[in-house]
Amino acid sequence: MSEPNGSVIPASHRDLLEAPLIAHLATTRPQGEPQSVPVWFDWDGTHLLIAVGPDSQKYRNTQRDPRLALSIIDPANPARYLEVRGRVTAIDPDTEGTQLRAIVRKYTGADELPGLEEQRVILVIEPVRTSSMG
Amino acid sequence: MSEPNGSVIPASHRDLLEAPLIAHLATTRPQGEPQSVPVWFDWDGTHLLIAVGPDSQKYRNTQRDPRLALSIIDPANPARYLEVRGRVTAIDPDTEGTQLRAIVRKYTGADELPGLEEQRVILVIEPVRTSSMG
Repeated sequence: MSEPNGSVIPASHRDLLEAPLIAHLATTRPQGEPQSVPVWFDWDGTHLLIAVGPDSQKYRNTQRDPRLALSIIDPANPARYLEVRGRVTAIDPDTEGTQLRAIVRKYTGADELPGLEEQRVILVIEPVRTSSMG
Repeated sequence: MSEPNGSVIPASHRDLLEAPLIAHLATTRPQGEPQSVPVWFDWDGTHLLIAVGPDSQKYRNTQRDPRLALSIIDPANPARYLEVRGRVTAIDPDTEGTQLRAIVRKYTGADELPGLEEQRVILVIEPVRTSSMG
């Protein structure tokens, strides 16, 4: 599934990363069992970016095991979906909140999300494999 | 989060199990990394029921490790969601296709889904823990 530009993301499903769709993030909990939670994400053409609280279970899960999966469906055709399996390759402290505002802007069109005052760090995710349908 | 009837499902989010919503199913792949895929499911008031091909990766994952998680968002309010963590406690061979038709009916209103000719077995899932928001 590799592409000329080196991305593993199939061109046929790249729109699902660019649209403001909810992804479901699977990580592995302390006892080895899966966790699944909906998340907002950004896509910079190379990495998936997710803002998480540093005390959140999903953050702690990825600190223990950086492997994760995300699945995203096309709301116009729920049989069409993309799964990205990858790993967290860096944590961006996002001290100025620049990346967090970019994610909020993708989903709301606004720079600020009222009530979102807590600290966030950014999981920088390298896609490794994908599966897709439709 | 236990309820008088013994279910771990919070009454506030039970509607998300009854509506024809897509769940995202997290299981654990052979090398221990998470997998996430969208699925249809049924809810009989006690168990979640998912029809899977016996050769599918998600079926093989649950045969190796029966622990899984499902997350479901409210399309009318994507900040509202339910995560169910549980385990596969039985495989229903569904020889007559009764349960498969029930699932198809939940999502399409029809008893038959054209093109769905392959064999399916039913993962019978006991909810163990939940998390929810909204």
